[in-house]
Amino acid sequence: MNSEFKVVGKSVPRLDGLEKVTGEARYIDDVKLSNMAFGKILRSPHAHAKIISIDTSKAEKLPGVLAVITAKDTPMIKFCLYQWIAEHYKGRLPREDYRDKLPLENYKVRYVGDEVAAVAAVDMETAENALSLIKVKYERLPIVLDPEEAMKPGAPLIHDELLRPGIQDGLERNIGISFVYKYGEIEKGFKEADHVFEDTFHTSQQHHVCMETHGAIAAWDKTGRLTIWASTQTASPLRMEISKALDMPEHLIRVISVKCGGGFGSKNEMYPHEIIATILAKKTGRPVKIVYTREEDFVSSRTRHPMIVQLKTGVTKEGRITARYGKVIADKGAYLSQGPGPLFTAGWVMTSLYRVENALYEGYSVFTNKPYAGAFRGYGNPQMTFAIESQMDKIAETLHMDPRELRLLNARRQGDITASGCEVKSCGLSECIERVTDASGWKKKRQQKTPRHGIGMACLTHVSGQRGIYGDADLCGAFVIINDDGTVTVLTGGSDMGQGLTTVLAQIAAEEIGVKLEDVRMVMGDTDTCPMDFGEYASRGTLVAGNAVKAAAADAKKGLLQMASEMLNESPENLTISDRKISSIKDHNKSLPISKVAYYAYFEKGVSLLGRSVWDAPTNLLDLVTGHTKPPGPSPAYLFAAQVAEVEVDPETGYVKVLNFTCAHDVGKCINPAMVESQIDGALHQGIGYALTEGLMYNKNGRAVNATLGEYKMLSASDMPPLSRHIIVETIDPLGPYGAKGAGECALVPTAAAVANAIYDAVGVRITTLPITPEKVLRALKQKENSVPLKMTLK
Amino acid sequence: MNSEFKVVGKSVPRLDGLEKVTGEARYIDDVKLSNMAFGKILRSPHAHAKIISIDTSKAEKLPGVLAVITAKDTPMIKFCLYQWIAEHYKGRLPREDYRDKLPLENYKVRYVGDEVAAVAAVDMETAENALSLIKVKYERLPIVLDPEEAMKPGAPLIHDELLRPGIQDGLERNIGISFVYKYGEIEKGFKEADHVFEDTFHTSQQHHVCMETHGAIAAWDKTGRLTIWASTQTASPLRMEISKALDMPEHLIRVISVKCGGGFGSKNEMYPHEIIATILAKKTGRPVKIVYTREEDFVSSRTRHPMIVQLKTGVTKEGRITARYGKVIADKGAYLSQGPGPLFTAGWVMTSLYRVENALYEGYSVFTNKPYAGAFRGYGNPQMTFAIESQMDKIAETLHMDPRELRLLNARRQGDITASGCEVKSCGLSECIERVTDASGWKKKRQQKTPRHGIGMACLTHVSGQRGIYGDADLCGAFVIINDDGTVTVLTGGSDMGQGLTTVLAQIAAEEIGVKLEDVRMVMGDTDTCPMDFGEYASRGTLVAGNAVKAAAADAKKGLLQMASEMLNESPENLTISDRKISSIKDHNKSLPISKVAYYAYFEKGVSLLGRSVWDAPTNLLDLVTGHTKPPGPSPAYLFAAQVAEVEVDPETGYVKVLNFTCAHDVGKCINPAMVESQIDGALHQGIGYALTEGLMYNKNGRAVNATLGEYKMLSASDMPPLSRHIIVETIDPLGPYGAKGAGECALVPTAAAVANAIYDAVGVRITTLPITPEKVLRALKQKENSVPLKMTLK
Repeated sequence: MNSEFKVVGKSVPRLDGLEKVTGEARYIDDVKLSNMAFGKILRSPHAHAKIISIDTSKAEKLPGVLAVITAKDTPMIKFCLYQWIAEHYKGRLPREDYRDKLPLENYKVRYVGDEVAAVAAVDMETAENALSLIKVKYERLPIVLDPEEAMKPGAPLIHDELLRPGIQDGLERNIGISFVYKYGEIEKGFKEADHVFEDTFHTSQQHHVCMETHGAIAAWDKTGRLTIWASTQTASPLRMEISKALDMPEHLIRVISVKCGGGFGSKNEMYPHEIIATILAKKTGRPVKIVYTREEDFVSSRTRHPMIVQLKTGVTKEGRITARYGKVIADKGAYLSQGPGPLFTAGWVMTSLYRVENALYEGYSVFTNKPYAGAFRGYGNPQMTFAIESQMDKIAETLHMDPRELRLLNARRQGDITASGCEVKSCGLSECIERVTDASGWKKKRQQKTPRHGIGMACLTHVSGQRGIYGDADLCGAFVIINDDGTVTVLTGGSDMGQGLTTVLAQIAAEEIGVKLEDVRMVMGDTDTCPMDFGEYASRGTLVAGNAVKAAAADAKKGLLQMASEMLNESPENLTISDRKISSIKDHNKSLPISKVAYYAYFEKGVSLLGRSVWDAPTNLLDLVTGHTKPPGPSPAYLFAAQVAEVEVDPETGYVKVLNFTCAHDVGKCINPAMVESQIDGALHQGIGYALTEGLMYNKNGRAVNATLGEYKMLSASDMPPLSRHIIVETIDPLGPYGAKGAGECALVPTAAAVANAIYDAVGVRITTLPITPEKVLRALKQKENSVPLKMTLK
Repeated sequence: MNSEFKVVGKSVPRLDGLEKVTGEARYIDDVKLSNMAFGKILRSPHAHAKIISIDTSKAEKLPGVLAVITAKDTPMIKFCLYQWIAEHYKGRLPREDYRDKLPLENYKVRYVGDEVAAVAAVDMETAENALSLIKVKYERLPIVLDPEEAMKPGAPLIHDELLRPGIQDGLERNIGISFVYKYGEIEKGFKEADHVFEDTFHTSQQHHVCMETHGAIAAWDKTGRLTIWASTQTASPLRMEISKALDMPEHLIRVISVKCGGGFGSKNEMYPHEIIATILAKKTGRPVKIVYTREEDFVSSRTRHPMIVQLKTGVTKEGRITARYGKVIADKGAYLSQGPGPLFTAGWVMTSLYRVENALYEGYSVFTNKPYAGAFRGYGNPQMTFAIESQMDKIAETLHMDPRELRLLNARRQGDITASGCEVKSCGLSECIERVTDASGWKKKRQQKTPRHGIGMACLTHVSGQRGIYGDADLCGAFVIINDDGTVTVLTGGSDMGQGLTTVLAQIAAEEIGVKLEDVRMVMGDTDTCPMDFGEYASRGTLVAGNAVKAAAADAKKGLLQMASEMLNESPENLTISDRKISSIKDHNKSLPISKVAYYAYFEKGVSLLGRSVWDAPTNLLDLVTGHTKPPGPSPAYLFAAQVAEVEVDPETGYVKVLNFTCAHDVGKCINPAMVESQIDGALHQGIGYALTEGLMYNKNGRAVNATLGEYKMLSASDMPPLSRHIIVETIDPLGPYGAKGAGECALVPTAAAVANAIYDAVGVRITTLPITPEKVLRALKQKENSVPLKMTLK
């Protein structure tokens, strides 16, 4: 491999930057079609109720109303993203069919915000007015908001189909899915331990709060073809889901992924509004746009799963982990969505970050009458990592070890195969720990013990790619065209949700072919023209789509080399391309510009300069039923990082100020350092918010009480520390394109633990429930005063 | 090859039919962009004049005017489509650079309609008003309208650069290009002849009169990318031409071929208005639309080349052709465009239709101060075929042979290699002659000699594909995606100008993969996403694009077979796909639906179902300088046909009524019979018009006097005979997809000759100048009366 990269590894500006700063980029609400109508959704005011009747007659009569629909106007086909992978496990899962959501509910509503009816009108105001004219008669049902309550015998049953012989009054009440994974010999492991630590942690229902709310436009043409403009992370899978939900073939559906103002996982599954817009468009014969209000977005888009994590870890007196038991109760909310994924990821982390050979994991995903959780940057990882990394500090303190040394002792290393079977082909964890502590002045600051000041650290591992969302594959397809003037067009199904994938893929294509970045044109996220990509999740874009584009570029380049070989009378193996020039490595006088060779290929020899590739990661499913995999496991590569937080805690108010963050991230080969750094900065913002302020809250009727930008406390610029000190640890992963791994999700994974550990270092209280609000800190400080000198844990 | 076709060979309805009949199809004038401005072009009122000055100040001040441009606002890069192939012949042609047209002229105007200035305004009316405010000072120059006059010493020189030492007063005055081709031993051939026939024919300046006039919209985005919506037959080449004309790389230019309301050759090169719209868009910062009025379209789009054909043929007394001399003077009009092509095609026909071994061809393309000719259905073939097939009847009469027998005797046959080197791999000419005469009752009707009634025949050969428009290649690229539900997407650069290519390519893809036609989605003519296709000309779509799509489909199918092979435990060679099912040919119980196999390929194995292909016809250039080629010559296959016309001539008025046409066409394997028949019917309409009524006419100042739909006499429905009796002769061409050859151009090629021959049969006068107007017939009848009994030829 060429070690002198020309495009890869450079902090080139985003290709879509100019479009965005000039306001030319078109997000969903910027798309205006002629004769377009506006759709609005009537949502349930009750957290749990039977739908007795719906009277739409008054709404229909309102001038300007074009259509009013209820469930009976839809195909009434239930959907659930989890169904895709469940198909693969047919016969091995407790249920065969996990589809539990209708675009419009016909029988029950299960959370405040559930879809009941919808209207299309000539303008938004009329549509809104029409909603108020729809009369729905409900029969209210008892509700349950707490997952532990929901599991108890006699709790209100949210999905009737879960009432089955044998489980209706047993432990599995309201359980959407559960896993039990066993690794090594857990009892032996605990026997070997000198100390056993047992703690319980609670995490909050963080919301993505994307800058752009959800939205879609649907339009039918007269030949029966459907086009959907969507703000989505997963254009191709969205087409698949719509195809199933409408029972129509995929080639009649075109999904166009418009510019996406943030996704963070919330935009990687089909939503009811996409089907509702489609049905309204069919009924009105006009394009129909539905864009969520911010309030709607807070309750009716997905969230992170709140989890109750019970963690028991055995260690030797030297600090070696001998065994670990974990139990997670995930609060699913009203519908399953992709709940099994985060639950499973939480279990995966337990044996992945550190060398843990003996383990037992129990996970339960439990329905409650609340807005339902789905995918969110890190999946189930931040929850479990908050638990693990908080507990690691407690262990270190008990063993009188520097937390840094405890982590280094147990750290995952290159060449390891984890207890679940994941092969770690590249691993910069130890280097991350060493460099982040060096750079942050860890040793000195831990010893100084400045009053109110604290320094804390936490580590993470995460996947980069994930086999097992859409069956037993993890693929991306790409086409590459080298044009007759030597410029390049790349077509791939990936979506750019703002993370910068367009730029990274263009860098990879330019590097592989040997042209300049500005020579590459990216066409992405249009299912009519772009080959399938499973989408942007699991930090897979750079690695999986990157490999697909690289392979397709190499395929297209073959023709260029063949042509140049004829023109230069040199064998293709002796040719190299860079900076738009094809040269012989043996004879430097033999050289031609790509533009000339491409021209000849098209106009003198008819040689193909088209490339195509489907890159399916050479990975193995982590079996959902057993929790085991064959190496290398579900991801082609694993990410590692270590973060150090410094905080100042005001003992009078409990207010925590984050002073700074130092981050060291192993991202494999770094394709674009500036963009990796901006990913880390953005993730830190979400991570610190997760640590200190964020989370949806509910009143006793199940209504979210802070579902506005004013009430839901995201950090503002003034709340944030200066942007992170960045250390990029460049391991070269054998499966990554040029050695690259992902970087999208990971930086928020350990952030809450690092902050919690720093708070403990500052004022000696350990908060185990997110978010760590001033009230909690203050309460803990008060309790601590009452029980000095013992440092205590507050749940 | 599977002899039982499932989709190919069926008269399925056009895929774009519903869109078109419902009015949903968007032609260029239907495309409306927000903030769009309207462009108009100021055209020269003089046929030949120097531009002294242009004052745009008043126009600029008109409210609503956004920009006024003249040549100085453009890049001033000259263009000429012929330049593409001229590059290949560098050093062998009399001139190196044939680029002679500017988007806006700066020095001279050369025909009434030449582009001088342009305006963009908020609406069309304002733009038109602004044109009248632009003051151009001209210095009028002497004009020349007749090509024979233009060649004479002292004639006004239209392009100054053609005044070069040695030729300025010689024979080559105003000659754009000339060819001299020698085959066999012409003198020996004429010596072997028992009779020599020498005639001169004149053909008219037929206009395409597309239902949709020319037009384009140009828009720049803020990142400097240009999008052009165009009514074009050649999306990819248009991008190439625009790239050269603006000196910007191709990947920054997107050409979208909107629905095209007819092209017939007139829309296969870049026009000045496309660059003018681009410059206006740049200057105004708004999208700019320019759509020609009908009057503009008549004079400022291309036309067929009027030709003076001098033809001398030697035959033995048995009727065998021993030698042929041909000289063509083509009236180029003001600019070269693709003039060399038709000139060269006229020469090619001379030795191609019949077995002519000894021949000499001289061709001259001569500038005059008239609207300039370009490509038109048949290129230079209808002109030469009118001469050859008129003369063949004269020869038959002299030799007392049935014209049918004379033609059969000399007819080109399968396996022949022509004098120029073209290999005829499939040939149904004799069968066409036999079947068309049988079906039309030829023998009986020729003997009956009903007064005023006549029956005449004519034959044709034509290319299907043509190496040598864009260099030494004749290619099309295609991508094929088999979706995860077994439906199919095809991407290719070809444009559908109404001829039905979309449907034919979908049939080929469906057949090749084994799905139903409705499973295929076609994406065409968008240079951002579709691989290069050289475009729709030379009857190449079905053959060249068809082969590309077939090969790409086969490439994509490989993955399907590989997957099915695993699933069915059967080797791929033993698998066959049809009707959406993959089955073992050995064990009929082994069978799976494609949808299931595709699902497995994507979601269980990650197997690629992407295909790509560039199909470059395995042909050889017909050398423009020598007129010789290596077999198989410039086209992968050659088309043949025979037509019989019956007419009634009114001796009182000279009015010719065409009673009926019988056509037998060898199109290779016929992919879609109904569409082939509609091509023939459409071409007959143009062919009969060419024979009887069509042609631009000029006053002495060079202004076209019939440049309106009212004055330019196209045939109306009531002028037309009942639709043709169709005989499809299915030779299976070895290089055609499933044996198919083209069918787009050919049916008008022999039509004028068939009509002329029928007129002669009816009333004994031979008209050699097109169109055969009643005046000409009447004049000939009068002259004949004065010189009975000798039948005579009127020039």
